[in-house]
Amino acid sequence: MLAVVPQGGNSGLVGGSVPVFDEIVINTSRMNQIRSFDEVSGTLVVDAGCILETVDGYLAERNHVFPLDLGAKGSCQIGGNVSTNAGGLRLLRYGSLHENVLGIEAVLPDGTIVDDLSKLRKNNTGYDLKQLFIGAEGTIGIVTGISILCPQRSPAINVAFFGLESFEKAQTAFKEAKGQLSEILSAFELMDAQSQDIVHKVTHNKHPLEGTHPFYCLIETSGSNAEHDTAKLEKFLESVMENDIVSDGVVAENETQVKTLWAWREGISECLGHWGGVYKYDLSIPLPELYSLVEDVRAKLDRAGLIGDTDEYPVVDVVGYGHMGDANLHLNVVTRRFDKAVEKQLEPYVYEWIQERKGSISAEHGLGLAKKNYIGYSRSETMIGLMRQIKNLYDPVSFFCLWSWCAWANSYV
Amino acid sequence: MLAVVPQGGNSGLVGGSVPVFDEIVINTSRMNQIRSFDEVSGTLVVDAGCILETVDGYLAERNHVFPLDLGAKGSCQIGGNVSTNAGGLRLLRYGSLHENVLGIEAVLPDGTIVDDLSKLRKNNTGYDLKQLFIGAEGTIGIVTGISILCPQRSPAINVAFFGLESFEKAQTAFKEAKGQLSEILSAFELMDAQSQDIVHKVTHNKHPLEGTHPFYCLIETSGSNAEHDTAKLEKFLESVMENDIVSDGVVAENETQVKTLWAWREGISECLGHWGGVYKYDLSIPLPELYSLVEDVRAKLDRAGLIGDTDEYPVVDVVGYGHMGDANLHLNVVTRRFDKAVEKQLEPYVYEWIQERKGSISAEHGLGLAKKNYIGYSRSETMIGLMRQIKNLYDPVSFFCLWSWCAWANSYV
Repeated sequence: MLAVVPQGGNSGLVGGSVPVFDEIVINTSRMNQIRSFDEVSGTLVVDAGCILETVDGYLAERNHVFPLDLGAKGSCQIGGNVSTNAGGLRLLRYGSLHENVLGIEAVLPDGTIVDDLSKLRKNNTGYDLKQLFIGAEGTIGIVTGISILCPQRSPAINVAFFGLESFEKAQTAFKEAKGQLSEILSAFELMDAQSQDIVHKVTHNKHPLEGTHPFYCLIETSGSNAEHDTAKLEKFLESVMENDIVSDGVVAENETQVKTLWAWREGISECLGHWGGVYKYDLSIPLPELYSLVEDVRAKLDRAGLIGDTDEYPVVDVVGYGHMGDANLHLNVVTRRFDKAVEKQLEPYVYEWIQERKGSISAEHGLGLAKKNYIGYSRSETMIGLMRQIKNLYDPVSFFCLWSWCAWANSYV
Repeated sequence: MLAVVPQGGNSGLVGGSVPVFDEIVINTSRMNQIRSFDEVSGTLVVDAGCILETVDGYLAERNHVFPLDLGAKGSCQIGGNVSTNAGGLRLLRYGSLHENVLGIEAVLPDGTIVDDLSKLRKNNTGYDLKQLFIGAEGTIGIVTGISILCPQRSPAINVAFFGLESFEKAQTAFKEAKGQLSEILSAFELMDAQSQDIVHKVTHNKHPLEGTHPFYCLIETSGSNAEHDTAKLEKFLESVMENDIVSDGVVAENETQVKTLWAWREGISECLGHWGGVYKYDLSIPLPELYSLVEDVRAKLDRAGLIGDTDEYPVVDVVGYGHMGDANLHLNVVTRRFDKAVEKQLEPYVYEWIQERKGSISAEHGLGLAKKNYIGYSRSETMIGLMRQIKNLYDPVSFFCLWSWCAWANSYV
């Protein structure tokens, strides 16, 4: 028997869609039809293979928006988004896929078709089984169709970018933003000075702020009334500047400036690869300690004599940024080459650090092949046992995703 | 062996917490501690037995709000809310419990403690098993603790109440409200003339609008800026009045008026019981046909000669109201006495009507004892089979909730 691995747009971080044991790939690209859209309720039904950007474009023409947005939108597929429970940029405003997905159509390993493509927002008749498939990474079934609730598009988008002197001040700014911007706050992104320095070194673009600051935040608002939103944002900026929470700030005045400001956040990932390799960690950490990990890792690599400006040092810098609104940190170690000495410093240190603080070793990218051995750092033995039960229920011979953390490779020996 | 039935505040509609086969009741009332609250992230951890109103009061003192509100808040418990996936009044604005619940602590029938009391908004490490317990009605485990994300309290609440000439106009008004009020729209409630007439007959209160209209809607907005919200609401009302979508309307000018207007919606349920009995249905129906069921049932009972103003007729009236924003209709048949002839007209007619339109026979109240035999009208054989698998996995001898639709009574014969 050969195993099967479902594959969407192949844009994942952890290798969940990569065949490594001679599996058969089932690629969903040709299942790319938009099945229906109802403008009154905002309910969209699509094939799993639809590209996120295509779907969002279709909705834009109808004055709606897909409740998820992420960097890979040009290639990632809706089925993959749902299977990995992708988080992305709009989560703060529109909620997660566990909220917005109304129904799922999926094929189980034994050929059973899960026909749960409901268009209802409320249906309390029995277990909400579709939730199991959201984030299951294709290990218990292949998602073939999705119905999802899409909000109306916000006509007003505002972006502000500011510098702060400490991570404590960034936390205060976030709390203030939640209070004052509340219902229109659609993104609160954190970037450290190191990340901005690297973007500058690679792109040679002029940074939006004059001086340098240890931390930067990007705030986005999405609302139905431009005048109201601008007034709220200006009042917020005034109050955080007056109270010395924020040191300097700038507001985008047109769509080009919106894109320019976002580029200092969205461009980080690409620029980090400039020197060679990057060790990437996508982590959830209770907010008060979110940035401490970056400092601890930087200090640790420094003590080991591994960070430096010249070629003899394997590490260029340690960088932290991410979705502060979701307590989601991207820890990135930028290297000139992959080096066992660096790896030894990083692991299991990073995972143990996360475990001590009850964080998550994979906030929004799943486990896949790359992180499958580390689930124990974020889940108890009991929870892993309960998950194995579910895998065993749907796929007792590990027909799907042989690589996965919950598969029993023994079945194939 | 004796079976077990978990019981919270005993405020359910469908008898899910009622022992009927000599079960042992496990009541959670004394598990009533608020365990922790973090003001920066808004994460609250509570025992399952905490009363909803108590928790919301605790949060109000800290400028936050519980993301769920419902009529029974003075007696219902958080554990029961989660176990029944309660919907209620704030769903449109704050989302469902599938979104807001971050973690669950539960005890399985075999004594295993599910220790998934995460405080993280993002944790993509394996299956999101807590989702199974949300809405499971205690059939696979007893929820003992919950961590949940709570938003900051909105300082500005506005309520408008208006009359419309048709259900089509109510739909148009809803679409307009979603567009113009967007991020501040926190409730869009529908009431028919019959429901308002009954509230008037019972309370003798003066109705907020002068003339009579076939339909009424109540809109609530919750936002961070009173001035902006009032401006948006006024502009919305102007546009729907000018375009003949709405015939007449009134806006609450203070908190007392807010409560008075809400009473014409929240008071319906109690007033319906005035004559004797009420047949209650809590249904999800695709929006365009939401109200047709009320008309069809009224016509059917009328044809059967069962509705009338005098004592010889068992039925007083057929009433429809509900959460239009969630396509959730409460169909209520107000009777002077329970009568087999009425029941024969109603069932299985109502369930078949729902099935034809792919609606849900229980939108937000679960199946419990009362609706357990009707799951087939809202779920396919395949889905019911998959649900039985889950029940069998966690509770093979039906130790919990013997009454439930998925339990095998045979185990006890």
